[in-house]
Amino acid sequence: MSWIEGAKRRAARAAAAHVQKGSVVGLGSGSTTLHFIQIIGSHLKSGKLSDILGIPTSHQAAAEAIKVGIPLTSLDEHPKLDITIDGADQIDRNLDAIKGGGGALLREKVLASASKKFILIADSRKLTTRLGESCPLPIEVLPFAIKPVLDRIRNLGAKAKIRVGSGKLGPVVTDNGNFIIDAEFGAIDDPWSLQRKLKALTGVLETGLFLGLTDIVYIGTQDSVKDLRRPRKEDH
Amino acid sequence: MSWIEGAKRRAARAAAAHVQKGSVVGLGSGSTTLHFIQIIGSHLKSGKLSDILGIPTSHQAAAEAIKVGIPLTSLDEHPKLDITIDGADQIDRNLDAIKGGGGALLREKVLASASKKFILIADSRKLTTRLGESCPLPIEVLPFAIKPVLDRIRNLGAKAKIRVGSGKLGPVVTDNGNFIIDAEFGAIDDPWSLQRKLKALTGVLETGLFLGLTDIVYIGTQDSVKDLRRPRKEDH
Repeated sequence: MSWIEGAKRRAARAAAAHVQKGSVVGLGSGSTTLHFIQIIGSHLKSGKLSDILGIPTSHQAAAEAIKVGIPLTSLDEHPKLDITIDGADQIDRNLDAIKGGGGALLREKVLASASKKFILIADSRKLTTRLGESCPLPIEVLPFAIKPVLDRIRNLGAKAKIRVGSGKLGPVVTDNGNFIIDAEFGAIDDPWSLQRKLKALTGVLETGLFLGLTDIVYIGTQDSVKDLRRPRKEDH
Repeated sequence: MSWIEGAKRRAARAAAAHVQKGSVVGLGSGSTTLHFIQIIGSHLKSGKLSDILGIPTSHQAAAEAIKVGIPLTSLDEHPKLDITIDGADQIDRNLDAIKGGGGALLREKVLASASKKFILIADSRKLTTRLGESCPLPIEVLPFAIKPVLDRIRNLGAKAKIRVGSGKLGPVVTDNGNFIIDAEFGAIDDPWSLQRKLKALTGVLETGLFLGLTDIVYIGTQDSVKDLRRPRKEDH
């Protein structure tokens, strides 16, 4: 285990301490959140935690939760979650983030928005002074609209391309049946303004900008964990 | 044919006069646009029009276009359309509209946004002084997020429900795989503000508010057709 895996684990452990008996917990996607899911699973096995219900942000998170024995529920049964823990591609000092490297940004943002408390966990490489610097912004787009939306995002100044992966030919298709555009804006001066502009484009279903949603960030470092906190959650 | 079908036909004929040889034409959905598609088909057969390519807003529009012999293309090949003609559920004096009764609002809005000219056609029953009065607003929503989004839309003051149709059990599923919420707001004082609030809800993929998009409206009446015009298209 390199220092990075240890750092992720330390951040995940700090976040897990916020999960209380009887909670409905949003389960983020990605390699850092995997540590969190495993920790919750082991707490359930050891009896340290009980009566937890998870809502996964992706097929990946669902599979891991099932593997470690976290009972699952849905937003239909529990439209308000107690807490959601997730990773991020990039986090700034305002606790705002870019997410979507794993292609799960839309469901992740739905859960973040529906949670009383939203905690991000990451290793220290993810901290930035300016969102967007050396980090493309993932944007989930209706396949029908992909070409005009791509043109409009380029007109906003981004170097943008449709995400291609492996395991299937052509574009990556998200868990919701859509495409992802990765848009390199460079350092983003005004993320709120960019978010408004992007969401105003018909066919843009959601962006990876997570603004004003995060309550706490735990950053794992080589040998410790530090936190960033927002005084009070803004209403969205 | 009741006066209503005649009125729809007159509006469709007025709109068809805007379609020129060599155009890429967005084909709206619904019973009024059906007249338009049929007229274009007959103009292609008679040789009055040629070199037309259509982009349909729904499976319904595609099927009708194929039936009457309009060659189809896609936004991937033609991300900018010359003209789109569509119907509406309700239209006000600003040429703003509520659409989505047919469940095709998302693709319809993508085409409206991608068109140099956007024309609405309707019979005179669709004119209103205030959008939303006796007309629910259709909203396309990610199925994963349907319950929290429904709660939030109700918190905005609407009587809202998930659309159920026939032919399948449970909610209507759109051509894009999503659900529709029909939200009764009553007369909408500030449609732009409502549009912003709704689009800011993660999981709301698009609303049926078509604002600042329409160039011309043709309204068929019992014995004639009248038009409403916007001086100049706003940039979106």
